[in-house]
Amino acid sequence: MREAIRIIGIDPGLRRTGWGVIEMLGNSLRFVAAGTVTSDGKADLASRLCQLHDGLAKILHAHGPHEAAVEITFVNKDAGATLKLGQARGIAMLVPARAGLNVAEYAPNAVKKAVIGVGHGDKKQIQMMLKVLMPRASYDSDDAADALAIAICHAHNRAGLAQRRALAAAE
Amino acid sequence: MREAIRIIGIDPGLRRTGWGVIEMLGNSLRFVAAGTVTSDGKADLASRLCQLHDGLAKILHAHGPHEAAVEITFVNKDAGATLKLGQARGIAMLVPARAGLNVAEYAPNAVKKAVIGVGHGDKKQIQMMLKVLMPRASYDSDDAADALAIAICHAHNRAGLAQRRALAAAE
Repeated sequence: MREAIRIIGIDPGLRRTGWGVIEMLGNSLRFVAAGTVTSDGKADLASRLCQLHDGLAKILHAHGPHEAAVEITFVNKDAGATLKLGQARGIAMLVPARAGLNVAEYAPNAVKKAVIGVGHGDKKQIQMMLKVLMPRASYDSDDAADALAIAICHAHNRAGLAQRRALAAAE
Repeated sequence: MREAIRIIGIDPGLRRTGWGVIEMLGNSLRFVAAGTVTSDGKADLASRLCQLHDGLAKILHAHGPHEAAVEITFVNKDAGATLKLGQARGIAMLVPARAGLNVAEYAPNAVKKAVIGVGHGDKKQIQMMLKVLMPRASYDSDDAADALAIAICHAHNRAGLAQRRALAAAE
C-alpha cells in the first residue's frame, strides 16, 4: 500500500496567514483542514511575528504534514508593505523548515495554473475550482482558500520537483 | 548597586546578519562582543532562514542580552531584494522576541544620529565613532559594526522609550 503524503500550503501575511492541509494518495487529493492564523494589529511587530510562529507551529503539530509549500508573492504597492510581507513570509518558511519539512515555493501564476488551468484568474475562480476539486473543503478566509490552492499546486508539481532535485544532486 | 543592562543590536540580512552586544551601566557603555551570522547562498531559502535562526539563537544563549534593537531598513532597489531583507528581518526579530526580550526598532538616521551626532554619514564615519565610543570594540564585518551602532542607539533611547510605553499604558 502506498502511503498518503500530507501537504501544507501556506499563504503568508502579517495580519492573516492562511493555511491548508491536503492528503495525496496516488493521484487523488483529499481535504484535511484549513484555517487562518492571525496576529494582533495593536501588538508590536516582534510580538506579532511570535503569534504567527506559535500559530503555525500548533497547526504543524496538529496535522503533521510531510511537505510544505509557500507562495512567492511580490507586493509592489510600496517597500513598506513588501517588507512586512517578507517578515511574515520568513516565519511561514522557518516554522516548517525547523520541523524538518522541505519547503517549496511557487509563483502566483503557477498556483493559478494548477487550480484553474490558466495562469491568471481571481480569488472567486480559485474558490469555484476548489469546490470542484475538493467538494468537502471548508475554509474561513480567502487566505485559507489560497493556501489550499498552493497545497494543490505542490501536489501537482512535487514529482517533477523531486526529479529535478535528484538530477541536480547527481550532477 | 545598579545592574548593568545588556543590549543586543542586530543588522539583519539574508546573507550576513550582524550582531553586537554592549553593556550599559548608568551612562557608561561597554563592548561585550560582536560578530556575523551567515547563511549558505547555495542552500534553499527555508534552510538559510533556519541557519540565521540557529545562529542568532546561539548568540542570545551565549551572551544573555536583556533587550534587543533592530534597524528598520528599506531596500528600494527592487521588490525582490526588499522581500529577501524582510524575511531575514522577520527571523532577526522573532528570535529575541521568543526569548522574552523587548525588540525596539530604529530608522537608519536615528542610528547615525546616536553614533555620529547627525542623521547622515557613511559606514566609515560610524566605525570611526565606534573607536571613540568603545575603544575595545572589535568586529568582523561592516554589518557587525552597524549592529553595535544600533545597540548604542538603543542605549541612548531606551529611557525615553520606557517612558513613552508607560504613558501609552496609562492612557
